[in-house]
Amino acid sequence: MTEASTNMRLKLPIVCFILQIILIILFGVLVQYDDEVDARKWHEHLSKHNSSDYDNDFYYRYPSFQDVHVMIFIGFGFLMTFLQRYGFSSVGFNFLIAAFALQWATLMQGFFHGMHGGKIHIGVESMINADFCTGSVLISFGAVLGKTSPIQLLVMALFEVTLFAVNEFILLSALGAKDAGGSMTIHTFGAYFGLIVARVLYRPNLDKSKHRNSSVYHSDLFAMIGTIYLWMFWPSFNSAVTAHGDDQHRTALNTYYSLAACTLSTYGMSALTAHDGKLDMVHIQNAALAGGVAAGTAGEMMLTPYGSMIVGFLAGIVSVLGFKFLSPILEEKLKIQDTCGVHNLHGMPGVLGAIVGAVTAALASSDVYGDGMADVFPDVASGDVEASFQGIRQAISLAVTLGMAILGGLIVGFIMKLPVFGAPPDTLCYEDSIFWEVPGAEEGHEDQLTTVVSAETEKLNGQDEPEHY
Amino acid sequence: MTEASTNMRLKLPIVCFILQIILIILFGVLVQYDDEVDARKWHEHLSKHNSSDYDNDFYYRYPSFQDVHVMIFIGFGFLMTFLQRYGFSSVGFNFLIAAFALQWATLMQGFFHGMHGGKIHIGVESMINADFCTGSVLISFGAVLGKTSPIQLLVMALFEVTLFAVNEFILLSALGAKDAGGSMTIHTFGAYFGLIVARVLYRPNLDKSKHRNSSVYHSDLFAMIGTIYLWMFWPSFNSAVTAHGDDQHRTALNTYYSLAACTLSTYGMSALTAHDGKLDMVHIQNAALAGGVAAGTAGEMMLTPYGSMIVGFLAGIVSVLGFKFLSPILEEKLKIQDTCGVHNLHGMPGVLGAIVGAVTAALASSDVYGDGMADVFPDVASGDVEASFQGIRQAISLAVTLGMAILGGLIVGFIMKLPVFGAPPDTLCYEDSIFWEVPGAEEGHEDQLTTVVSAETEKLNGQDEPEHY
Amino acid sequence: MTEASTNMRLKLPIVCFILQIILIILFGVLVQYDDEVDARKWHEHLSKHNSSDYDNDFYYRYPSFQDVHVMIFIGFGFLMTFLQRYGFSSVGFNFLIAAFALQWATLMQGFFHGMHGGKIHIGVESMINADFCTGSVLISFGAVLGKTSPIQLLVMALFEVTLFAVNEFILLSALGAKDAGGSMTIHTFGAYFGLIVARVLYRPNLDKSKHRNSSVYHSDLFAMIGTIYLWMFWPSFNSAVTAHGDDQHRTALNTYYSLAACTLSTYGMSALTAHDGKLDMVHIQNAALAGGVAAGTAGEMMLTPYGSMIVGFLAGIVSVLGFKFLSPILEEKLKIQDTCGVHNLHGMPGVLGAIVGAVTAALASSDVYGDGMADVFPDVASGDVEASFQGIRQAISLAVTLGMAILGGLIVGFIMKLPVFGAPPDTLCYEDSIFWEVPGAEEGHEDQLTTVVSAETEKLNGQDEPEHY
Repeated sequence: MTEASTNMRLKLPIVCFILQIILIILFGVLVQYDDEVDARKWHEHLSKHNSSDYDNDFYYRYPSFQDVHVMIFIGFGFLMTFLQRYGFSSVGFNFLIAAFALQWATLMQGFFHGMHGGKIHIGVESMINADFCTGSVLISFGAVLGKTSPIQLLVMALFEVTLFAVNEFILLSALGAKDAGGSMTIHTFGAYFGLIVARVLYRPNLDKSKHRNSSVYHSDLFAMIGTIYLWMFWPSFNSAVTAHGDDQHRTALNTYYSLAACTLSTYGMSALTAHDGKLDMVHIQNAALAGGVAAGTAGEMMLTPYGSMIVGFLAGIVSVLGFKFLSPILEEKLKIQDTCGVHNLHGMPGVLGAIVGAVTAALASSDVYGDGMADVFPDVASGDVEASFQGIRQAISLAVTLGMAILGGLIVGFIMKLPVFGAPPDTLCYEDSIFWEVPGAEEGHEDQLTTVVSAETEKLNGQDEPEHY
Repeated sequence: MTEASTNMRLKLPIVCFILQIILIILFGVLVQYDDEVDARKWHEHLSKHNSSDYDNDFYYRYPSFQDVHVMIFIGFGFLMTFLQRYGFSSVGFNFLIAAFALQWATLMQGFFHGMHGGKIHIGVESMINADFCTGSVLISFGAVLGKTSPIQLLVMALFEVTLFAVNEFILLSALGAKDAGGSMTIHTFGAYFGLIVARVLYRPNLDKSKHRNSSVYHSDLFAMIGTIYLWMFWPSFNSAVTAHGDDQHRTALNTYYSLAACTLSTYGMSALTAHDGKLDMVHIQNAALAGGVAAGTAGEMMLTPYGSMIVGFLAGIVSVLGFKFLSPILEEKLKIQDTCGVHNLHGMPGVLGAIVGAVTAALASSDVYGDGMADVFPDVASGDVEASFQGIRQAISLAVTLGMAILGGLIVGFIMKLPVFGAPPDTLCYEDSIFWEVPGAEEGHEDQLTTVVSAETEKLNGQDEPEHY
Repeated sequence: MTEASTNMRLKLPIVCFILQIILIILFGVLVQYDDEVDARKWHEHLSKHNSSDYDNDFYYRYPSFQDVHVMIFIGFGFLMTFLQRYGFSSVGFNFLIAAFALQWATLMQGFFHGMHGGKIHIGVESMINADFCTGSVLISFGAVLGKTSPIQLLVMALFEVTLFAVNEFILLSALGAKDAGGSMTIHTFGAYFGLIVARVLYRPNLDKSKHRNSSVYHSDLFAMIGTIYLWMFWPSFNSAVTAHGDDQHRTALNTYYSLAACTLSTYGMSALTAHDGKLDMVHIQNAALAGGVAAGTAGEMMLTPYGSMIVGFLAGIVSVLGFKFLSPILEEKLKIQDTCGVHNLHGMPGVLGAIVGAVTAALASSDVYGDGMADVFPDVASGDVEASFQGIRQAISLAVTLGMAILGGLIVGFIMKLPVFGAPPDTLCYEDSIFWEVPGAEEGHEDQLTTVVSAETEKLNGQDEPEHY
């Protein structure tokens, strides 16, 4: 067994156990329930404010949290099952790195968002934020899908979550930018981070696995489960942590219309650009979601319904064009092998969303926002800054995010390249059976591909007795 | 390329782009956030009424909205994936026409439900209503599934949404009927509209595609995802726009018990009527939902739990009998080729629900409803009409709905028949690959059926170079 | 046709119809809307308490209810679709017995939880409790999956729901134990009840169906839909009926962290124990959920975030070890053929959860709980008992649950063994086509296995004309 072995028998348990034990220790030392979760403190709060149990924030955030949770685990997980032989890994690694990332994100975000007497306070809002940060990691996962081991992905998650929290702190706290749905913090950051990692992990001989880098009929249907859930719940995603009242209401509504418009432009563009006027599932599965990404920053603003529709409409066009024309260029010229096309779904629409956010912020007026200005742009409401300057802050935030993502992706990509992490060989990319016990495709047949793969894997790991499931 | 070409390269983009641009312009001119969504107005409301952000209707409607949204996109979309070669189209066209219909419905319903100073006001309740109207279109889609092009479906949606809004206005505003869960407005209307369209689009030579008009093992499992989601969330559907408090609570509960009882009668009837005592997936996928349809009108009334169960029990029986005995007659005698059996799931149970609603309304007494009468039957509570007359209104509403659906379906069916809309030929019905790039069914094989289909499609469209995905 | 016939043509309709008609009669006699559902009573409540429609409990329980509902119908249903030829039955029988059990549970729980003037009052909380009881039956279903007829399952549900209600009454009312998420009442009870039933129904010749007792590639992906939904919504499950305010909030949060930690230990243990360091889908599908089971009792207590993580971490380890080492022993030595491994997912983690609950209860102090003690441990708060005694109550409850489950499973197992209920023969276990019309696996081929099975079934039932779907 060489150091490059993809055998996970010892490596994965060691990594999982060490990470989880460190998490438990850090949680034991640093983490407490917040005042709405803690039995004693909440009841003190109740008697002090003559309040009701029905005022607990749980009731006003938890339904959104659950929608976001579905997007993270079902949405992202199944969206990536489109590959014919990578369904177990898509859902399964998504599950693993998300379960790790959300715990680690609780610590990192808690640390940067402000400690309370040396303690991190957690509740439903921190749970949503942890899921958001996790989403960013899963976007990057999409760029390297099929070409990485679970340990590489955990390593990526470890560093990316940390950098995400730093970037989020700079944007929201230091720069005073607004980005409730994360066009910048989540999508732009996750996409460009992942693309740079994919660049560093470039495989010149990836065409050896090319025959597996495509879908089959039912894998595309599984992927549509992911797509539709992401599409349906995106209004909850963008509105999950905005201010209560009109803000959540408006963000959900803007996102809903942006997505609807995006769907029509995606179908139109797909028929226009794909072969022979036929629709391309890759476009439908991905580009139809770009409207949610692009409404991530401006969704909480007074974007107006038709403004939201214009944003979604453009996002769908940009995204399909990206799949058609830009992805091949990225791969051939820039050597970025972007498996899921995250540049088209999260990268460009994220940048678009950031720009829309900056412009919409710069145009904010007290005439339109009234007393609601304090929720959306507190610094503008308080008179600390002009609306135009808020727009500049937003634009700077985009630049910072791109810088952080590119620099971070570069460093983390090189770390992930260490051979000890067990990346699959070029011949076994996009293939479940290198890391999973895989049954046949149908009853009664021995699965031929599995047999071939097993033979290759054995050679690689120097083992003797294959045993089928 | 003849006019009858199914090639969508120009047609679909043109239709999608024109529709979406018209929508954006009309939204720009006509649509505004309502008072709970608009930043300035909500904060004015807050200070005027000494109210709290927690009183925003978002928190009391949005969870129901999301459940309805899942029914529309996952429920209807996957319910129709039972066909072996039509999964992409089922989910994908469902997605497309729903995304269009919900925008158009916002306008049409806003127009008929009353403008505010020349403007349509939108918020979470209009979002639910738009989804409801969309549901009606998707029911009609079920009747013509597999035999229509995406453009025909968009044309159908355009007209059906308009007629839906007119019918809804007549029922709820002009006649003062109650129909919160849409037994009449959504199910009866959508079903009979779709059946008449199917009649107009009758294909005498449809048996050329008969081998594809059936399920395979995994397609039936995908369809069960749709069924189960529809079943689970139907209580949210029926209660989504009823009055707050006891009304929503009661509607959800009645629907829950109606569905449970319907499930048992469906299983019993399926074993009784199907071959050799075996259960038939078609019955389970569809008839088990009839209890939700049949509770659509009376669900908000004081139907009592056992009353709800009787309604569901009967609905299941009627629905299975319809699949077994009526559908073949509809096809052979009336020339209505009802792909999904919408007559059995939405048609007859919708009529049953309307009748149950009329009877329950006629029996309403202030003894049973107390002060709650004002929520359920405001005109009875105010003394304007007797309960018995409310029952008559309900019955008239059913007649109006049937008339509107049949007349509308007739006209729209003939419009859809125009050859320019690219209906598939008789030999290529129930077939994804006429409108979609379709990968093979399993890795390693060239998909033979796709090859055959491509050859036929090429002939049809006069192209030269097939290229496979 | 012998008495042992698996033909359901008469049996299933008779059972379904009789059960449903009895349910309707009993509901008619015994069941009423509670004060939050009834139109008159709610409006009396409103005027008496100067309350608002927004205070209706519907808004504070219904979103949790829907999450639980998804777990019951999608979660359990799809989790069991992992078998290659048993997807229809897994989802379909799950659907049937759940639809029956939730109605019957409403009556049984209503009877034991206290009648109001001879009437059972129902509302959203009773709906959640009925779903909980149903969950217990579905756990037992997992133990006998593939080896039972739908009638046997309905018989099991009939008795198990009754015994569940008795056990729940003893624990929560007589003994004053706490078990909001049901580590004991739901998981321990359901698992050991099912295991004993499986023991009674032991089939020495089950290896005749061994070739079907495994998964295929896509069936494992369908099963992952079930897993992920269970995992995501478990925080809602455990918190669905806890007290409002901090209690629901805390329970959800504790469960979330327990599950996350459990996922990492599951992946680690799976790689460590499975063949050649490859991950085993059986572990991921099941053991990753053990953290939710194990947090079922203590979730509402002040378990602390890191305490929850330790519990989940251990649950994942125990569960994977059970699959690897204990399940084979159970089968060989104890003759318990546990199809889904419910002992590893619900049995041992349930017992672990009960123990954690007892210890956490015994350690409760007013210093930690403050005035919140009254919600979590009312008897401790009122001074009736010491915390340590509450711990003893919890421990006794576990013992009672195990006793009830084992005794109940024994009796009900023997009832289920009656030949009239139509159990499948040893040669046709784990096979849909004995009870379902089954289409082929792919278009174009006649499904060979179906043909073989049909031949066997015909022989069994003495029929003449097979007819394929």
